Amino acid sequence: MIVVLRLGHRRVRDARVTTHVCLTARAFGASEVWVDAEDRELERVVEGVVSRFGGPFTIQTGVAWRKALQAFRGVKVHLTMYGLPLDEALTDVSKVARGKDVMLIVGASKVPGEVFGLADFNVAVGSHPHSEVAALAIALDRLTEGRWARTKFKGASVAVRPHPRGKDVVQLRAGKGRVAEEE
Amino acid sequence: MIVVLRLGHRRVRDARVTTHVCLTARAFGASEVWVDAEDRELERVVEGVVSRFGGPFTIQTGVAWRKALQAFRGVKVHLTMYGLPLDEALTDVSKVARGKDVMLIVGASKVPGEVFGLADFNVAVGSHPHSEVAALAIALDRLTEGRWARTKFKGASVAVRPHPRGKDVVQLRAGKGRVAEEE
Repeated sequence: MIVVLRLGHRRVRDARVTTHVCLTARAFGASEVWVDAEDRELERVVEGVVSRFGGPFTIQTGVAWRKALQAFRGVKVHLTMYGLPLDEALTDVSKVARGKDVMLIVGASKVPGEVFGLADFNVAVGSHPHSEVAALAIALDRLTEGRWARTKFKGASVAVRPHPRGKDVVQLRAGKGRVAEEE
Repeated sequence: MIVVLRLGHRRVRDARVTTHVCLTARAFGASEVWVDAEDRELERVVEGVVSRFGGPFTIQTGVAWRKALQAFRGVKVHLTMYGLPLDEALTDVSKVARGKDVMLIVGASKVPGEVFGLADFNVAVGSHPHSEVAALAIALDRLTEGRWARTKFKGASVAVRPHPRGKDVVQLRAGKGRVAEEE
């Protein structure tokens, strides 16, 4: 089980980027996302995607991050441009993670210094400033060995059928699902 | 040469996500980003990162996207959750792209329908809603076979030295560079 912990979320400023973090977590193989600040609208958006495109995937907001980090029994990996290179670190992470849950920690802007100490590993997806969304996608891709490309989600009400030139969205069952434009 | 074309940018709503798109383009091996809407502040932020962390990487905003798409002589790949699966599509893209420039097109929210026709390939990084930042990172990773992890940028004034527990930022030369917190 992989859980993503999102730190430093501010509802207005980070609304869209945190939404991207949550949906990237879901699409690339995490089964939960925990967000430090409470945000009902974010929960609604993410749960709407799970309802339409399937799960399992859950979101919790208003999570006490320090307690969550301290209580987590698996391997805690903080994604930061200051950490050790992903390719090198992954060998060590994989050794320790065997059979254990993994937490991936991603910050918005500045992360409290103590996170570097509370994490088991500080890992850089490139030592350059870019995006926690990109870092999360690449880290999940590597950790799961690209399993996202073959994942079947359960309980979806709609599905996209790959198409070379247009949009082909299939209604799978009557219910809450709406065939809407997705971001 | 890989260029990223960002469509549908709205300065206020998309400020942060488009910044992530641009920095992800740079960090994962594109050499240019073109943004449809004019946005001097975005240019300033991206050029600041290039000045501190190196290049070559250029940004243009206020790009007439339809003309740019029509005039582009290389292979145009539109990243969309409605397209053909990345792993399958990549074989065809690579055949066509041999020695040619590649344009990766990413939208913010809804993309005009004609883009599906103007692109040579419509490619899905997973047929699920997530993030154009994640899609771009994975697509660049695959297209360049992970070259980003070994790239040396030129003309940087600062560099991050990988560290297991903290931040180690090295000043490479006097100049415009500031050792500042990066996102």
